[in-house]
Amino acid sequence: MSKPLSIAVAGLGTVGVGLLKLLAANADIVAARAGRPIVVGAVSARDRGRDRGVPLEAVRWYDDPVALATDPGTEVVVELIGGSDGPARALVEAAIAAGKPVVTANKALLAVHGAAIAEQAETRGLPLAFEAAVAGGIPAIKALREGLAANNILRVAGILNGTCNYILTVMREQKREFAEVLAEAQALGYAEADPSFDIDGVDAAHKLAILAALAFGRPVDFGAVHVEGIREVTALDIALAGELGYRIKLLGIASRTAAGISARVHPCMVPAAAPIARVDGVFNAVVAEGDFVGRVMLEGRGAGAGPTASAVAADLIDIARDRHTPVWGAAGGALGTAPSVPMDRHVGPYYLRLMVLDRPGVIADVTGILRDQSISLESMLQRGRAPGEAVPVVLTTHDCEEAAMRAALVRIGALGAVLEKPALIRIETL
Amino acid sequence: MSKPLSIAVAGLGTVGVGLLKLLAANADIVAARAGRPIVVGAVSARDRGRDRGVPLEAVRWYDDPVALATDPGTEVVVELIGGSDGPARALVEAAIAAGKPVVTANKALLAVHGAAIAEQAETRGLPLAFEAAVAGGIPAIKALREGLAANNILRVAGILNGTCNYILTVMREQKREFAEVLAEAQALGYAEADPSFDIDGVDAAHKLAILAALAFGRPVDFGAVHVEGIREVTALDIALAGELGYRIKLLGIASRTAAGISARVHPCMVPAAAPIARVDGVFNAVVAEGDFVGRVMLEGRGAGAGPTASAVAADLIDIARDRHTPVWGAAGGALGTAPSVPMDRHVGPYYLRLMVLDRPGVIADVTGILRDQSISLESMLQRGRAPGEAVPVVLTTHDCEEAAMRAALVRIGALGAVLEKPALIRIETL
Repeated sequence: MSKPLSIAVAGLGTVGVGLLKLLAANADIVAARAGRPIVVGAVSARDRGRDRGVPLEAVRWYDDPVALATDPGTEVVVELIGGSDGPARALVEAAIAAGKPVVTANKALLAVHGAAIAEQAETRGLPLAFEAAVAGGIPAIKALREGLAANNILRVAGILNGTCNYILTVMREQKREFAEVLAEAQALGYAEADPSFDIDGVDAAHKLAILAALAFGRPVDFGAVHVEGIREVTALDIALAGELGYRIKLLGIASRTAAGISARVHPCMVPAAAPIARVDGVFNAVVAEGDFVGRVMLEGRGAGAGPTASAVAADLIDIARDRHTPVWGAAGGALGTAPSVPMDRHVGPYYLRLMVLDRPGVIADVTGILRDQSISLESMLQRGRAPGEAVPVVLTTHDCEEAAMRAALVRIGALGAVLEKPALIRIETL
Repeated sequence: MSKPLSIAVAGLGTVGVGLLKLLAANADIVAARAGRPIVVGAVSARDRGRDRGVPLEAVRWYDDPVALATDPGTEVVVELIGGSDGPARALVEAAIAAGKPVVTANKALLAVHGAAIAEQAETRGLPLAFEAAVAGGIPAIKALREGLAANNILRVAGILNGTCNYILTVMREQKREFAEVLAEAQALGYAEADPSFDIDGVDAAHKLAILAALAFGRPVDFGAVHVEGIREVTALDIALAGELGYRIKLLGIASRTAAGISARVHPCMVPAAAPIARVDGVFNAVVAEGDFVGRVMLEGRGAGAGPTASAVAADLIDIARDRHTPVWGAAGGALGTAPSVPMDRHVGPYYLRLMVLDRPGVIADVTGILRDQSISLESMLQRGRAPGEAVPVVLTTHDCEEAAMRAALVRIGALGAVLEKPALIRIETL
């Protein structure tokens, strides 16, 4: 057995402690798979005195995480601090500058600064590994970047945020409203005190930006991702979706079209029989469609100490074995340059739910506006009659362009008989 | 870009031609991912004159596949002939002896002779890659051997044979019997003219033997796999399973128990809500459970030219990039030596369906025999009454040992009122 690989771990939160526990509990397995033991030589975290349930006496302690980059005994730096800037970014850049491979679970950092950091790492010939940044324990990065590497990927999509999937699952199963389920999820620790990062789709968008870069072999481009969250999803729309044979999921979807790469995160209606529709609760899933492999789906736990530690340790084993893959799958010079397609150009079917005053002429007004935008209806559902009162009207469309639908929505929303902001959910087949 | 990687392909059946098509269609993607072009320099197949729809003028043709091993321009040998012995084995051994990395899709060869061949490759320091041997296009080998490498794997299971899954799916959806659906599958090309390899579970057992070796880090041991196929599954049992909330799937399951490694292929009843229960038709799935990662499921096409070519090409890209992993995940000296557990020692719940003459005392006889073997019942279902005629009686048990159940079955089958061979299906939670 060769000499141990000595690593430094920055950040001893849930994931950092999980990694230390894994490396201790499965030391034999890791050593056998890595060809050498992997040992933690140095750490950095805020509160040195706190008992984390793992022995830290024998490791070098740094109060400043950036100092780990130049710790003389460290061969690989593991960044588990989080955040797109601040100490996480400073540490990663310092480690690369110091010639050390980096393993990170930091999707925000990679989504926002990944293109520049990847260039830095490539220039130095250093591995930059981030299996844990997307879909937790699911080996989605490896599958996309290596396992399906020979395919022209047409689309990659996923349930990339466990908090949103948990909330949507409970809303459906218990027929409850968003705000109430969110509050409960916060109490249970499934949602953060400030939940906006998750429920507004930002976290999923970070991950999608990374998946899109890998799938289409081009540098990450977070700015091009269209992002919507789940705040506006209602129990009514979830129930109506069920009647139409759909489930509502927050999906990240990146696809290659004739015009370029489209990347978007928003609530979707997916057929109830689609494999991804069955992925409930805190589970994540990633679906990739390749021209030769067809559709492959990976499903598992997308967060938590154990799954994330599993992914970080897999990256460390790759580095210990000298298994090296360019950050975005191909060397910088061989990366693609397909343009990003703005959301206005999205084409697909839509679900539209209005609350209208039940009086003559309303439906004629609505359908007239849609006709003016060349949007053709696939179905219309008006449930019950209550003259003079508000009733839901549901319309589904054939494929149309987002810009036309948006223009129609403005006019429909302005109709006197339309009482609330119309609900719009895109229909996807996966 | 570095100089091309020149490969030799033995076997130009569906998969071989699929590989040539992939390498031509996606040459740019493959070159970018591999860091160098991958070109086919030599091939071997039976009928040189046949038009395969791919240009072969520029390649060196060998009538004897084994001669590819010593083709002077070949750096990597791809074996797509199939079969556990004969030319496939001779070629793989000759290629390794000649110092050339081997990529193969041959599960039979690996299951039966894999331990010896892996040793040979390791001694020479050569990659032996076989992503295509299990679950077609699904990157299951890579996920298990690299992506989940840091986990103590507790169980790996899968739907590993698309023919069986297709037949069971059609039997359930159309309420038809095995023989009829098999004949139709043969006519459609989903089952071979001689289907025994698939429907008797041998093909799934080959794949399970490989998965078990990877999951538990020990040399492949096909002889230790318990194998049953789907010939005896009836439409009646599928319907009764549905009533009990189960679906019947042919699964391969390998698990680590206190006594050692258990590996078995047989029809199983899985809860209808389990993710694997939803994997229908020709799709395959692999579920792995690790101590840190939890449950991960991978789903996709398990066979066919495109998916298999995708997997072979991924292996070639790994080799082109010098990404090297020991055959069973760890070097020979670090492999485990856990013993294999015989099927008699299997413990779990069972479904038992008898056809009995509806007359007094029969149930008392049956339950008395089960009591004698210390088998306790979870439920009993007798549908309808037809005095003097045969009626189905369904029993489900709590956990019991296979040996006890087998002993009980012999006695139950010998009862005068039990008219057919009892149907026995193991119940699994996944």
